[in-house]
Amino acid sequence: MVVYLDHAAGTPLRPEARDAWLAAQAETGNASAIHTAGQRARRLLEEARERLAAVLGCGAIEVVFTSGGTEAVNLAVKGLWEVRADGTEDIVLPDGEHHATRDAVAWLAGSRGAGVRPVPLDPQGRIRPGRFAEVLPGAAIATALVANNEVGTRNDAGALARAAATAGVPLHLDAVSAFGHLPVDFASWRADARGATGLVALSVSAHKVGGPVGVGALVVSRHAEPSAQLHGGGQQRALRAGTQDIAGASAFAVAAELAVAELADEAARLAALREQALAAIRREIPDVVPLGDPVDRIPGNLHLHFPGAGGEAMLFLLDQRGVAVSTGSACQAGVPEPSHVVQALGYDDRAARQVLRVSFGRTSTGADVEALAAALPDVVTRARASR
Amino acid sequence: MVVYLDHAAGTPLRPEARDAWLAAQAETGNASAIHTAGQRARRLLEEARERLAAVLGCGAIEVVFTSGGTEAVNLAVKGLWEVRADGTEDIVLPDGEHHATRDAVAWLAGSRGAGVRPVPLDPQGRIRPGRFAEVLPGAAIATALVANNEVGTRNDAGALARAAATAGVPLHLDAVSAFGHLPVDFASWRADARGATGLVALSVSAHKVGGPVGVGALVVSRHAEPSAQLHGGGQQRALRAGTQDIAGASAFAVAAELAVAELADEAARLAALREQALAAIRREIPDVVPLGDPVDRIPGNLHLHFPGAGGEAMLFLLDQRGVAVSTGSACQAGVPEPSHVVQALGYDDRAARQVLRVSFGRTSTGADVEALAAALPDVVTRARASR
Repeated sequence: MVVYLDHAAGTPLRPEARDAWLAAQAETGNASAIHTAGQRARRLLEEARERLAAVLGCGAIEVVFTSGGTEAVNLAVKGLWEVRADGTEDIVLPDGEHHATRDAVAWLAGSRGAGVRPVPLDPQGRIRPGRFAEVLPGAAIATALVANNEVGTRNDAGALARAAATAGVPLHLDAVSAFGHLPVDFASWRADARGATGLVALSVSAHKVGGPVGVGALVVSRHAEPSAQLHGGGQQRALRAGTQDIAGASAFAVAAELAVAELADEAARLAALREQALAAIRREIPDVVPLGDPVDRIPGNLHLHFPGAGGEAMLFLLDQRGVAVSTGSACQAGVPEPSHVVQALGYDDRAARQVLRVSFGRTSTGADVEALAAALPDVVTRARASR
Repeated sequence: MVVYLDHAAGTPLRPEARDAWLAAQAETGNASAIHTAGQRARRLLEEARERLAAVLGCGAIEVVFTSGGTEAVNLAVKGLWEVRADGTEDIVLPDGEHHATRDAVAWLAGSRGAGVRPVPLDPQGRIRPGRFAEVLPGAAIATALVANNEVGTRNDAGALARAAATAGVPLHLDAVSAFGHLPVDFASWRADARGATGLVALSVSAHKVGGPVGVGALVVSRHAEPSAQLHGGGQQRALRAGTQDIAGASAFAVAAELAVAELADEAARLAALREQALAAIRREIPDVVPLGDPVDRIPGNLHLHFPGAGGEAMLFLLDQRGVAVSTGSACQAGVPEPSHVVQALGYDDRAARQVLRVSFGRTSTGADVEALAAALPDVVTRARASR
């Protein structure tokens, strides 16, 4: 029996989402076909779009389904940049963004002549709106995490969006790790924006909220028109070509609705599990350093620095004891690199390799906390000894 | 009860593929995570990759999972072009390719300076290898359909690949409409190729063989390295970033294996249904013109020109009688345009609007043929009268 504490990398499919997926499969028909079967399929798809839009706080026409968070981020960053880059090629890129964003920006910088304007994080891993606002004027686009996927700290998305609106810069918010765990409201964050500036795009992913892997969405303001990254067929405002995954969209909508409906209760429950875990770990390992904002964070995220204990070693030793955690975002976990997020908090290379991300989710219980707290002291001792 | 004869646009999910999808969902874990749960997920994914590779005739490392055929084609066309374009910017683009290819090439031509070298189709809709070979020398890349998705004609993929190998040009084959319906063998088609030239990429889609929508793959030769189109994380040889859809991959592999195992029997059965339908329609509507090669074609594809009868009108009238067909590829069916494929066969604009594509599939029966043949005469008469 695995004690699964890596929900931020992937959380189990909700039964209701599975049922929605299966129900949609009973409909045969391509949503682009104009016969009745196609129309029925299209109705199912548009219903999913409307339901997802309702919980995201946007219009249905603004929901562009994608194959996941990575594609949504790529469409936002590259697509918005390509239609803006005309003398103002700079991208505002805070330190500590997700690899999808960093790598898309790096590609634009390396291949297309984009410039990069970094924004330092504060010691809690937060983008300070004032620092963000300082570098905005004259930039082509800006991007920012709603909450950091590694250390969990929540940003003031509303303040970042207002700063972008004031500066007249289009902003993409990466809500992949936040959606379903913290309030997300496209309309209120966009309130001060005009036309194709301010908050114009927001990315989310289904499998972070109990929907299937391989499904995501980019909210694209009706006032913005990023260039398409997938060509062929005019689906979804011609922003994203390809046969639309109706079953995936339906399952995503159901999972998102449930996650948002449960958010308040679940946030309190997961925060309590997190605090319980931290207290238990501190009793045994007094020099553990929790990273990120202690309170204003993704509720189920606990990020810990264990001075002198290698993250990889701890991960393996915990795994041997049946406890699954992560050293950071799953995407980089295959390659043992120091976390760029922990470095952005002011830690050196070595410290940035001595961290664990514990992420609780829908199926987590107090028993998981006890198992983790029971296993960790010996694991940390051994990891420190093996340096 | 709908008589569904639009299998080329979307065919029902196979029960075995559904079961594989559900079984994979029971595994929680991101395939990039290094703990045991992640490793189990990864094993499932790599098993799916190996099984798909076996039926495609390539190595497992050469299978890059995508979100579908459109993404696979985009990755091939743009990715291969971007690493080759250095003075030789031309793309060999036969007339009658799928919109995913045409639109990706049009984007490269419009935004990146690519040139286009067309190749005319013969009156059956076939790319003549000799004509293809003529325009290859000095081109950056070439692309071609294994079988035309509208009129159904099969190309001589081996001859096209040999021509590309001889000319030293990297070739992408679009096998989306052919895979599972006609033999596809990457290794044998690549036989004469050297390094990153000749056949280097081949695109397929799950939902054309009874797998789920939202899953596809691009076979990328181990000797080729197209530039990535999705950035973030180094998944899949760094050719395609994003959390990998293990359930989708598993379902695709199962569906593909079944489709290929049944291919010979199913091809004979569907060809018989097709011939039965054509004979019945001809008895009632003697001036019907079947398009495409009469024999060497996608077995379940019947493409018909009804002089003087609008395709849209016929489609709607058939739909009222419970029969679902298409006027062409589903992607363009939402927009009533004349078929560029039928035009490439030498027909004018008006004739290119007077066609129907009837596509039989796994669940099709003789009763479907009878229903179609019974409904069509009145439908064609009415469509002709409404001109």
